[in-house]
Amino acid sequence: MLVKSQVKYIQSLSQKKFRDEEGVFVAEGPKIINELLAGNGAIPAAVYATTEWIKDNTAIISKHGTENFHEISYQELERISFLSTPNDVLAVFKKPLFDQEINPAQSLILVLDTIQDPGNLGTIIRCADWFGIKQIICNTGSADNFNPKVVQSTMASVARVEVIYTDLIRFLADYGGVQVYAAALNGKPLSEFRSIDHGILIVGNESKGISEEVMAFSTDCVTIPRFGKAESLNAAVATGIILSGFRS
Amino acid sequence: MLVKSQVKYIQSLSQKKFRDEEGVFVAEGPKIINELLAGNGAIPAAVYATTEWIKDNTAIISKHGTENFHEISYQELERISFLSTPNDVLAVFKKPLFDQEINPAQSLILVLDTIQDPGNLGTIIRCADWFGIKQIICNTGSADNFNPKVVQSTMASVARVEVIYTDLIRFLADYGGVQVYAAALNGKPLSEFRSIDHGILIVGNESKGISEEVMAFSTDCVTIPRFGKAESLNAAVATGIILSGFRS
Repeated sequence: MLVKSQVKYIQSLSQKKFRDEEGVFVAEGPKIINELLAGNGAIPAAVYATTEWIKDNTAIISKHGTENFHEISYQELERISFLSTPNDVLAVFKKPLFDQEINPAQSLILVLDTIQDPGNLGTIIRCADWFGIKQIICNTGSADNFNPKVVQSTMASVARVEVIYTDLIRFLADYGGVQVYAAALNGKPLSEFRSIDHGILIVGNESKGISEEVMAFSTDCVTIPRFGKAESLNAAVATGIILSGFRS
Repeated sequence: MLVKSQVKYIQSLSQKKFRDEEGVFVAEGPKIINELLAGNGAIPAAVYATTEWIKDNTAIISKHGTENFHEISYQELERISFLSTPNDVLAVFKKPLFDQEINPAQSLILVLDTIQDPGNLGTIIRCADWFGIKQIICNTGSADNFNPKVVQSTMASVARVEVIYTDLIRFLADYGGVQVYAAALNGKPLSEFRSIDHGILIVGNESKGISEEVMAFSTDCVTIPRFGKAESLNAAVATGIILSGFRS
């Protein structure tokens, strides 16, 4: 059974301020939660699930210790869910801890200049995970990677890709001396960039692109050749296409 | 000023049934609407805009005939908008008419097996437009391309890419004899597919992939090589990456 204070606590986690204070985030649905619990370094603080999910996942539950798993009714799940159609299980996870050096001379780092749409950020994180990118740098005006909508779009990649929020200008000034690729509409075609496994790739805001001050740090502009009439590509799609090109 | 019947009419257009009966769809915001009005074959049935938008777009208005443009207050816009933050202008457009033969022996056609998320479908339509794909075939269980959320994600590509809803099995049986590429996790790497400008590309459902019956028509399975740990890619991102590979 759910008590009032639990409902209030989970609802408060829709706000970044409380997520930061508590060092936790919320994920929902068997697909994401089971992957996170299967051993991706994500530690559950509390899992609220229907009888069905509990029955199907006894091995996972005993692995993590039964004390953190709470059986609730679907009606109770509806009270705590951030989804319009709640999906069997909701979990509060401790934010993952990453202990990895930032070194664009050795690995490819993705820099996002103000990605504001939570779905786009989540999809970019998932995509970065697919292509083996381990670190994303965002400026402080971007969506929060632990926002419930972002978490849902990452699938379980939220626990595998480190997202660092900082001043991009300072970051780029500190980590200069490497190739800095900027996604732009008037650069060299993507096919000229092959086997790129280190450096920095900058992707810009959904409507404004990359700001002038950030663009000043770029050493190469990368363009996805256009064959039709769309004015632009979705930011997550563009990121995926460029990362795929870089890895080929 | 808005009258009650106009509010009711526009609200009814959130439903596919009424959009189909009326042969119209709704778009919102200056970015999409101005592009549609700039001459992409989209004919406005009624445009509702704030004083500001009206002032900034006198040339567009006189081009299309002033009788279809209605100046309304922001409060009135809030009553008809499908967005949480209404954006200066909402327009009802007549659905575009396409008069093009389906010929996968000459051009690349995209087949979507049950894409259900409106944002994904819209992003795929926009992406198809970027890569010069003019026709998308969806089965009837897919999101409707004129759903307001889909329209917003397409940007203005909704007017340039024809989306046909039909039985995929019958379609694939009728248009056989060409290469049929299926996006899958266990196929040949994308880099083996270059300069592909005709045939059929099938992309599957967000969680279930391509159904067995549809997959039976494929002649080649295409895989985007994975370098990290994500279990899958977002359907729109995967479509973009494959189309980019096919065009390179």
